[in-house]
Amino acid sequence: MRGYTAGKDDYLKRLRRIEGQIRGLQRMVESDEYCIDVLTQISAATKALQSVSLGLLDEHLKHCVAEAVAEGGEIADLKVREASDAIARLVRS
Amino acid sequence: MRGYTAGKDDYLKRLRRIEGQIRGLQRMVESDEYCIDVLTQISAATKALQSVSLGLLDEHLKHCVAEAVAEGGEIADLKVREASDAIARLVRS
Amino acid sequence: MRGYTAGKDDYLKRLRRIEGQIRGLQRMVESDEYCIDVLTQISAATKALQSVSLGLLDEHLKHCVAEAVAEGGEIADLKVREASDAIARLVRS
Amino acid sequence: MRGYTAGKDDYLKRLRRIEGQIRGLQRMVESDEYCIDVLTQISAATKALQSVSLGLLDEHLKHCVAEAVAEGGEIADLKVREASDAIARLVRS
Repeated sequence: MRGYTAGKDDYLKRLRRIEGQIRGLQRMVESDEYCIDVLTQISAATKALQSVSLGLLDEHLKHCVAEAVAEGGEIADLKVREASDAIARLVRS
Repeated sequence: MRGYTAGKDDYLKRLRRIEGQIRGLQRMVESDEYCIDVLTQISAATKALQSVSLGLLDEHLKHCVAEAVAEGGEIADLKVREASDAIARLVRS
Repeated sequence: MRGYTAGKDDYLKRLRRIEGQIRGLQRMVESDEYCIDVLTQISAATKALQSVSLGLLDEHLKHCVAEAVAEGGEIADLKVREASDAIARLVRS
Repeated sequence: MRGYTAGKDDYLKRLRRIEGQIRGLQRMVESDEYCIDVLTQISAATKALQSVSLGLLDEHLKHCVAEAVAEGGEIADLKVREASDAIARLVRS
């Protein structure tokens, strides 16, 4: 069980839609579509991925981090540091 | 012919690799892998997409925009505005 | 007392340095310095601001959110939602 | 003369407003204001800086890059590469 388990089907549906967007991008490049149109489609896929990230992170804070913090001690510190590192990667990517 | 046509095979290879990363993400979610590991993998896919964008944009400036600017007139203005809008979408996504 | 209170002097020092960077940008624009050099300096200021954000957010999770979660109930939910919203704003800005 | 010279007064006004936002941030941290409120204010300053960048870049493409491209040769290649590098720094910051 993970923080995102309850929403698993929804996440899978979104990831499959993103996979479809990436395949659509391949078709666009294969048929030499206009660069700007390819870029617009990449921005859409990036935003969709980012939105999955923000959802997973929210569940992670609500469940895994909250439980660790309730337990206290070293595990709490570790989970908060780990979440902060993931947020930093997300902000910088 | 597009700005990216010469590098088409390389772009297709990169997009297929990104498609593989997205399918890997689906397997991770299906087997309830740890949230932070899923997030790390999403950051990697996002960075890979961003890098494809930056490559396409560079080719677009070098070819399509440069040609339009050399022609001058309305088409030059249009192409520069279009590129600026694509850059703004990229920066904000 | 806030999560960042212990590191307050350091945050103030960093914000004063960023203020200096913004004033430097004004001097650059006033003396018509090269666009690309102005852009490089803006990227540096943006990165410095982002790094202050990530530091504050880490302290916030470690202190305010952790305390609320230990208390439990509505306040815990509220604090986690508030942190998730702040992260989303950060990722999208 | 730079690409942004015609809009110089507007850019200076925006940079002075951002300087004011950074000083506001110092006052917020000095008086221990709530972390989330500080983060919201940092997001606003970051967005304002980003918007100055996008404006400068658009002028740069319209003027400096367009002129270099019209001239052609090595200077055209150099200016396009320089612009692409600036865009990459902007997207990654």
